[in-house]
Amino acid sequence: MGERAPSHLIRVEVRPPYPVTVGEGLLAQVAATVEEQRVAIVSDAVVAGRYLADLEATLSGAGKVVSAHVVPAGEASKSARHWLELQRAFARGGLDRASAVVALGGGVVGDLAGFAAATYLRGVAWYQLPTSLLAMVDASVGGKTAIDLPEGKNLTGAFWQPRAVIADVATLATLPETELRQGAVELFKHGLLADRSLLDDFDATFGSSPRSPGALADAIARSVAVKAAIVAADEREGGVRAHLNLGHTLAHALEAVSGHRLTHGDAVAYGLHFAALLGRQRGHEDVTGATSRLLAWVRPAPLGVTELAALLPTMARDKKNLRGRRRFVLLRAVGEPCIVDDVSEPELERAWGALLEEVGA
Amino acid sequence: MGERAPSHLIRVEVRPPYPVTVGEGLLAQVAATVEEQRVAIVSDAVVAGRYLADLEATLSGAGKVVSAHVVPAGEASKSARHWLELQRAFARGGLDRASAVVALGGGVVGDLAGFAAATYLRGVAWYQLPTSLLAMVDASVGGKTAIDLPEGKNLTGAFWQPRAVIADVATLATLPETELRQGAVELFKHGLLADRSLLDDFDATFGSSPRSPGALADAIARSVAVKAAIVAADEREGGVRAHLNLGHTLAHALEAVSGHRLTHGDAVAYGLHFAALLGRQRGHEDVTGATSRLLAWVRPAPLGVTELAALLPTMARDKKNLRGRRRFVLLRAVGEPCIVDDVSEPELERAWGALLEEVGA
Repeated sequence: MGERAPSHLIRVEVRPPYPVTVGEGLLAQVAATVEEQRVAIVSDAVVAGRYLADLEATLSGAGKVVSAHVVPAGEASKSARHWLELQRAFARGGLDRASAVVALGGGVVGDLAGFAAATYLRGVAWYQLPTSLLAMVDASVGGKTAIDLPEGKNLTGAFWQPRAVIADVATLATLPETELRQGAVELFKHGLLADRSLLDDFDATFGSSPRSPGALADAIARSVAVKAAIVAADEREGGVRAHLNLGHTLAHALEAVSGHRLTHGDAVAYGLHFAALLGRQRGHEDVTGATSRLLAWVRPAPLGVTELAALLPTMARDKKNLRGRRRFVLLRAVGEPCIVDDVSEPELERAWGALLEEVGA
Repeated sequence: MGERAPSHLIRVEVRPPYPVTVGEGLLAQVAATVEEQRVAIVSDAVVAGRYLADLEATLSGAGKVVSAHVVPAGEASKSARHWLELQRAFARGGLDRASAVVALGGGVVGDLAGFAAATYLRGVAWYQLPTSLLAMVDASVGGKTAIDLPEGKNLTGAFWQPRAVIADVATLATLPETELRQGAVELFKHGLLADRSLLDDFDATFGSSPRSPGALADAIARSVAVKAAIVAADEREGGVRAHLNLGHTLAHALEAVSGHRLTHGDAVAYGLHFAALLGRQRGHEDVTGATSRLLAWVRPAPLGVTELAALLPTMARDKKNLRGRRRFVLLRAVGEPCIVDDVSEPELERAWGALLEEVGA
């Protein structure tokens, strides 16, 4: 390793505002950011095995009283049971209103720990230390925390902004390649929505081996900036934040119909290309070349469904469609998203046919 | 019954602001306030037996889709189990972001239903229909929602403001006298903090039989206005909202030491008199005559403890005391609360002695 890549700072303008720092080796500097004296770290078994001891040592070395709470890795930990266990452990550990929660891990840990922080004593400070690319580019901005219910994912939660997010790209070196690709899909989406340079540099950043920490940090910072600008304009999801659902109408239907066999990132990769195909049909800027290359790089699991008819009911039931209408985010051009609810079934069938022809079922 | 008492409207200036309406027969008019199409009513078995059928009919008659969720009466329903059952029932019932929760009941129902509304889909609208005097004068303002943990009361919750509070004083006619007195203690506290007329009219309003709905509505509205002004100045409990803890430092210690055999209202009645005694010792306005009369009227359960030493550790551990200091709210005069953390043990012993002499152990 040579010099460390420089850090980037993005300020998320919500109430209250908070900083997202992206850089290399930042986990060793967390104590300078966490102000609270008493700290509860929440992590999962895999991430804890790699980084917990060092983080505990760093925080304890700064004179803080540190406890650690490790849940199993995987979506099943986003449960009411684990949330309740955290609440009780915080209480037994004497966490008070001046204490803080530190989430060390990917999206599952962030959602669970964030919701635990949102509700303990009606809300305590929390810090997010994302260790997956998806958590860095997506969950780090927006303040969304949640757990799953047997009835569905993310049905219970809160909007609760962290005090700070510290994204150490060094943790990506141990991230499985398939998980990295999941996160890259959302980063690519941010490029489509608002920053063409993310598309232009995508192959150089993610296609090279070994990947450059500096290039990764730069791309992540730009992706975070895109989402931060959208969320700042619409903190509670009433308007432009819906643009972040680019590719997600089809994706949610694919995930649901596959019984979540298809991962979210894979489904969104399909969904982005599908939205690009719909846009091209309408005479918008043709971005299908870019989304097609993304799809080839992601190598998603097979669609697993050949009939669009199997997906249509789920698209209309999507919880984001308030009046049961089928809503799509399309791109007039890169950087110019629009929301439409007049996409006809013939249009959908045509785009679906093109997608099937390209990727097979 | 003659004419109905006129209604009072208090606007609570939080974000977003909401109205508290206090009057007679208001439950029949709830449909005019609830804007949402799909409504989940949460109530307890006792209150539901009296008012649920009429409320369901009123809302259904206005074309709304109504579901009802009834929990057992009593503090035990403020549990994670009941909260989770509500989340799941909401999901199965198809409640979406445009739906609303209606809390019909006292403080337990309001806290539970409010927390369920705060977390379901990261927050949906809710309306509070308090049916106890305590819920009308206390829980109706402040946006505090919570459930209990085995480790302590109200340890998990959220600040989540209702869209509106509708307090129908007709429901107080069936409220047990002991419960009414619990609420009257908090109303009296609001009088001490900011509205002498509440003290002056207290005997006429609460001592007469039968009580006048008009006088009750008037007193409740003034009490709500006091709390609303304090909460509006300090929505998230950083400053003057602490004034609402008048009488509560001793009260929390008494409740804890008694294992919650002593009710909150009884404990606060003792606490208000204790704070008055402390203030008199310091040469502040002597309000012990008023608090002594209150205590005689409330007829609280016995103190159950004779040694102040038994209470001191709990006073210092109160979660509101951030740095472990013993903090009291005292009155320089009626309407002039102040926060002090320099009350010495000899002062406490002297006031405690005076209290014991008056009420016995």
